[in-house]
Amino acid sequence: MNELTIRLDAHASMPLYEQIYEHIKKEIQNGGLPCHERLPSTRKLSVFLEVSRSTVTLAYEQLLSEGYIENQPGRGYFVNDLEGLYQINGGGGEIQKIPEKRPRQFQYDFSPSGVDLNSFPHNAWRKISRELLMENNQEFFRLGPPEGEEELRRTIANYVHQARGVQCRPNQVIIGAGNDYLLMLLDAVLGEKKVYALENPTYKKAYDIFRTLGNQVKTVEMDAYGMKVEDLEESKASIAYVMPSHQYPLGIVMPAGRRLQLLKWASKSEERFVIEDDYDSEFRYKGKPIPALQGFDTEGKVIYLGTFSKSIAPAIRISFLILPERLLERYRERGRRFSSTVSRMDQKILARFIQDGYYERHLNRMRSVYKGRHDVLLESLKPYHDLVRISGEYAGTHILLKLPEGMEEKRIIERAAEKGVGVYGLSAYYVQGQPSGATLILGYANLEESRIRQGVELLAEVLCKS
Amino acid sequence: MNELTIRLDAHASMPLYEQIYEHIKKEIQNGGLPCHERLPSTRKLSVFLEVSRSTVTLAYEQLLSEGYIENQPGRGYFVNDLEGLYQINGGGGEIQKIPEKRPRQFQYDFSPSGVDLNSFPHNAWRKISRELLMENNQEFFRLGPPEGEEELRRTIANYVHQARGVQCRPNQVIIGAGNDYLLMLLDAVLGEKKVYALENPTYKKAYDIFRTLGNQVKTVEMDAYGMKVEDLEESKASIAYVMPSHQYPLGIVMPAGRRLQLLKWASKSEERFVIEDDYDSEFRYKGKPIPALQGFDTEGKVIYLGTFSKSIAPAIRISFLILPERLLERYRERGRRFSSTVSRMDQKILARFIQDGYYERHLNRMRSVYKGRHDVLLESLKPYHDLVRISGEYAGTHILLKLPEGMEEKRIIERAAEKGVGVYGLSAYYVQGQPSGATLILGYANLEESRIRQGVELLAEVLCKS
Repeated sequence: MNELTIRLDAHASMPLYEQIYEHIKKEIQNGGLPCHERLPSTRKLSVFLEVSRSTVTLAYEQLLSEGYIENQPGRGYFVNDLEGLYQINGGGGEIQKIPEKRPRQFQYDFSPSGVDLNSFPHNAWRKISRELLMENNQEFFRLGPPEGEEELRRTIANYVHQARGVQCRPNQVIIGAGNDYLLMLLDAVLGEKKVYALENPTYKKAYDIFRTLGNQVKTVEMDAYGMKVEDLEESKASIAYVMPSHQYPLGIVMPAGRRLQLLKWASKSEERFVIEDDYDSEFRYKGKPIPALQGFDTEGKVIYLGTFSKSIAPAIRISFLILPERLLERYRERGRRFSSTVSRMDQKILARFIQDGYYERHLNRMRSVYKGRHDVLLESLKPYHDLVRISGEYAGTHILLKLPEGMEEKRIIERAAEKGVGVYGLSAYYVQGQPSGATLILGYANLEESRIRQGVELLAEVLCKS
Repeated sequence: MNELTIRLDAHASMPLYEQIYEHIKKEIQNGGLPCHERLPSTRKLSVFLEVSRSTVTLAYEQLLSEGYIENQPGRGYFVNDLEGLYQINGGGGEIQKIPEKRPRQFQYDFSPSGVDLNSFPHNAWRKISRELLMENNQEFFRLGPPEGEEELRRTIANYVHQARGVQCRPNQVIIGAGNDYLLMLLDAVLGEKKVYALENPTYKKAYDIFRTLGNQVKTVEMDAYGMKVEDLEESKASIAYVMPSHQYPLGIVMPAGRRLQLLKWASKSEERFVIEDDYDSEFRYKGKPIPALQGFDTEGKVIYLGTFSKSIAPAIRISFLILPERLLERYRERGRRFSSTVSRMDQKILARFIQDGYYERHLNRMRSVYKGRHDVLLESLKPYHDLVRISGEYAGTHILLKLPEGMEEKRIIERAAEKGVGVYGLSAYYVQGQPSGATLILGYANLEESRIRQGVELLAEVLCKS
């Protein structure tokens, strides 16, 4: 019983039975107690260790349930044959630490994916959270339906109808934790035999996501009206992913004629659909918002994707799909397998935030903040009108700056970065080919007006010296 | 200009330009203004309608940006060729409403997927939420890293080490909104050429999810120790999905020997991995919790999946993956494309909930609540020991009840349902084949002790009369 001379500590926080269990387990693992060895009976060991018999029994039971020892009825306890245990405990393998890549920090960051975080509606959000937490409703902690809370779905259906001209009923709305997740879910709902087509340039992340999910993904060239429908037809794709109200990154608005062509393309086959990513249509600084493509669709061919990441804050993690009626059955069969990714509480906060009018007020405020920044950016660029050509203005939260011939995108970005100015190249949004000439993307959502002025001044120095 | 006799209302809430825009758009849509028709100049129309010229210009600009009209420089404004517009507006398609299926409600619901909602730690959760909301930290509203908040990942790594014997560093922990999402993400990270193997019977939802994602999925038979490793080898699967600490639904604990065999199987090929779904190992009413398989793994072959759905509440929507180091590079390439699905706020609440000791106290409380229910259930079943055979007790939140020969599972479930008692059949968990004989699953997590007694009495009546 040498291996079982266990130094027990009655005053330790670890119970006695656990000390015995730990000791025997280690002895088995390090080979001190070889396989097929018989252990002393619980009675014998309890006498030897001067503990109660039930303490030893507890330790043996734990070893039994984890499979270290076995009980041969009438014969006693034996160490199990744990082939490979020694190597495994000795092994270790090569573990290699991969350093995390940190995104570069800029003093003036014209990132097109920013939103103004100072404007987050803290007070309203906090007030509603508090009210809901006080309600103490047990239902909040039960798992909600996979498609989302009825109340939020109704509220969203109503909102997108009024604000975006979307025609839908609440049961077509599917809530999810962000666009990336919803694209993943949609991909599973649509099933296997599909080919996606995206514009070129496009929102590269969507392209990468469709590919990562194992799909064939084609790119289709654009003209001034958006995706070329003849090229789309030729691509043999079945799902077209577009941003008709404000193409990212070019800022093109797809006109009514092209929209109808696109819907006609989709209507030609049962398996064709158009994904309308309506990511930032709330922000338009001239005229009314451009209505959603979905509102033109009467044949159930448009899958609408909306988000609160841009209009409230990315940290909210709430987006929504509006599926055409014809896809609801398929969603129910395949998509409902995936439990909801947004907590009921967050869904209830957002529903109330919209219902109580906070969302509309917040949007109005943001529209005015962003318009102010947009106007300052255009104004600061005015002195350089013979140097750069601006496009994509009057909507969204970024503009494009076409640089004079001979300038190299990468070099300008690098030299701006040296001055603390973050600007981004259009070429990064091309899946295939490259834009003719160098074009910069300047986002202005998360830069105060004075900083926009300073940033443009620094950028201009770079441009004038290049 | 007949079509342009617009009844304008200066007192309406809709601005004048918008009234003009809406009128012309409708006229174009219904064919009153046919394509290629020239519109009056802005000057002429403003005189005709007695409004300022800039009002008409605004309306025309909106029509231009939406593509209803075009501006031919020097010639004026013309209605665009919108082929298909009339049909599309007239269409409508067949829209068919599919009724939602509502799950059946029982007075005594022995659902195995329940959790005790009365025990949700309201006060602590509310207190922490309030504290965090007061901090007013702008960072909360920025999009966090895809893999989750550093703080929560550190807290979880620490917790699973202490509670489950898991060996990992915080950078191996990936946070996500629920197990279903994390399986989806993992599927994308692992890439295309893989075949899953699941136990039979198993957690059917995981099976359905892997299939819905387009994978080949095999089932492997079990013996008393869990998945048979020789059968697994034969199945040609590369990913084995198991629940070693408490198999669902059978409640089997995989002993150390079988665990080592499984790890050995995985170590034979670069692309083999074991997914350890450790869904309810917090709850064990005899001895210590069974340590996780992951802790045995020194070659980076185990992908650990943990959740707070069972231990706190499903509505929390927070689960986590612990990836082996060798998969981190692949996660970074493929998985990081998908933005985080859990809001930073919720991650911070949970991190603090664990750090401040609330989680441990909550677990202790739940263990005692569930043990109480478990004991009452076993006790109430005692008089029927010659009728039914119990297995899967002393852990988790459900037990199995093997019925006497000749009884039909479906019939018993139906007759119990008529008495308001929800019990579930083991056969539903079989992907292939059927269990020998009839077996019921009785979950007890969301039933108070008195109701368990009443429910068992009613169930016994059914059994005794069958």
